[in-house]
Amino acid sequence: MLCMEYPYEVDLDVRLRDIDFMGHVNNATYATYLEQAREAYFQDVLGVSLTEVGTVLARLEIDYTRPIGADADVTVALGVPELGTSSLPLEYEIRADGERAATARTVQVLVDESTGSSEPLPEQWRERIDVTGT
Amino acid sequence: MLCMEYPYEVDLDVRLRDIDFMGHVNNATYATYLEQAREAYFQDVLGVSLTEVGTVLARLEIDYTRPIGADADVTVALGVPELGTSSLPLEYEIRADGERAATARTVQVLVDESTGSSEPLPEQWRERIDVTGT
Amino acid sequence: MLCMEYPYEVDLDVRLRDIDFMGHVNNATYATYLEQAREAYFQDVLGVSLTEVGTVLARLEIDYTRPIGADADVTVALGVPELGTSSLPLEYEIRADGERAATARTVQVLVDESTGSSEPLPEQWRERIDVTGT
Amino acid sequence: MLCMEYPYEVDLDVRLRDIDFMGHVNNATYATYLEQAREAYFQDVLGVSLTEVGTVLARLEIDYTRPIGADADVTVALGVPELGTSSLPLEYEIRADGERAATARTVQVLVDESTGSSEPLPEQWRERIDVTGT
Repeated sequence: MLCMEYPYEVDLDVRLRDIDFMGHVNNATYATYLEQAREAYFQDVLGVSLTEVGTVLARLEIDYTRPIGADADVTVALGVPELGTSSLPLEYEIRADGERAATARTVQVLVDESTGSSEPLPEQWRERIDVTGT
Repeated sequence: MLCMEYPYEVDLDVRLRDIDFMGHVNNATYATYLEQAREAYFQDVLGVSLTEVGTVLARLEIDYTRPIGADADVTVALGVPELGTSSLPLEYEIRADGERAATARTVQVLVDESTGSSEPLPEQWRERIDVTGT
Repeated sequence: MLCMEYPYEVDLDVRLRDIDFMGHVNNATYATYLEQAREAYFQDVLGVSLTEVGTVLARLEIDYTRPIGADADVTVALGVPELGTSSLPLEYEIRADGERAATARTVQVLVDESTGSSEPLPEQWRERIDVTGT
Repeated sequence: MLCMEYPYEVDLDVRLRDIDFMGHVNNATYATYLEQAREAYFQDVLGVSLTEVGTVLARLEIDYTRPIGADADVTVALGVPELGTSSLPLEYEIRADGERAATARTVQVLVDESTGSSEPLPEQWRERIDVTGT
């Protein structure tokens, strides 16, 4: 992850409901933060909402570095290390009060919702996505 | 994952609230299913609840195989591939109506809640955990 | 509520994720328990899932009697005090380990999903619903 | 509700995860929005977080006016209609894109967390709370 650049950032609000029995943001809620960061990225960079396109999540990886408290300021930074034919990998850093709280990787696949089979990423997306390499 | 054995299984109820804007169980909710399966495993095999011991999740990996609908019967099978000094890795298969919907791996670390530093897994746990290898 | 009868009961699983920063089941999660109990009632008594019919929640009331812990056995009992033309009121008792943890009331309205306007409850529902009075 | 004034407002972010199988913000999530608005009010007006004081929710009422979509701008306005000895009632309006989406009322009770019994609202709170009447 050392050379990864994150060309996109979004601030997220921690909710009291995100806190779990351990007193910190629940581990599953990190995945919700990643989803919300993807939605912001899709809207800002690709001009569409995830509610308007047929993408499915194929893979999720999270490395938890330190716990996030209820009063933390959370930012998710993300970048695209490379592009597949139908798949869009993303790498993320979740920051709490400016410090790394987790790193994460997801792979999304574009699918035709009527048939369920994968389809190529649109050319327009390829033009707009700033592939950062690793 | 081919040789992984899952010596423990637990049935979970899908809730309507688990369904998201895509019409299937949300990707983050799979992490909640894994947490619930861990809790059942800890109670049944180790005789403690996760609410009583200081474990933190260090890593989470999920490979999504197929979507889970609201009316699916969900089972989570899990096993322990090996044991670290302070870390307890788990491997999972989430099944919907008997078919694989996802595979997953987590690493939990036992910590002293007062100091935050890792501590060795209790000998009693090592005796009770059936390490399955991979 | 004194004379209310609850002709239907369903057991629900408390998840660790239901526990909030206070160490008990979160107040909003009670509404999720009620939704899950409605879904069970609709499936068992009316033979349809809420995912198959167009009902919207018009009103929700919850009186919290005592907190619910992570290890509680939760049952939701419910009954129909009366029937409107398009509206289906329900009364509930949420029990934890056999004792009342909350009482609640909801009003659902059947709507035509294409127009959004209310429509009469089907005659078949009226035959199947055991109106208990109050 | 006609004469109710709402002297406090807070903007909240809708998350994709708030959307349910019906395609709108889930009914239980409205209760989470209210909790988040209470937290903002406590921090801004009373100078404490709900995580620092012992309050329990005694009652919740929500009247749903219209559905909230994933792309809505949500604001919660709230006011205190009156003050009890130990209880703090709140009235709310949830607005989506400037229009009323729901009205709600809650009653919180201040409790001594060690004994569980109610205790009087601090004088400092009474000075800071702008009781609006109804």
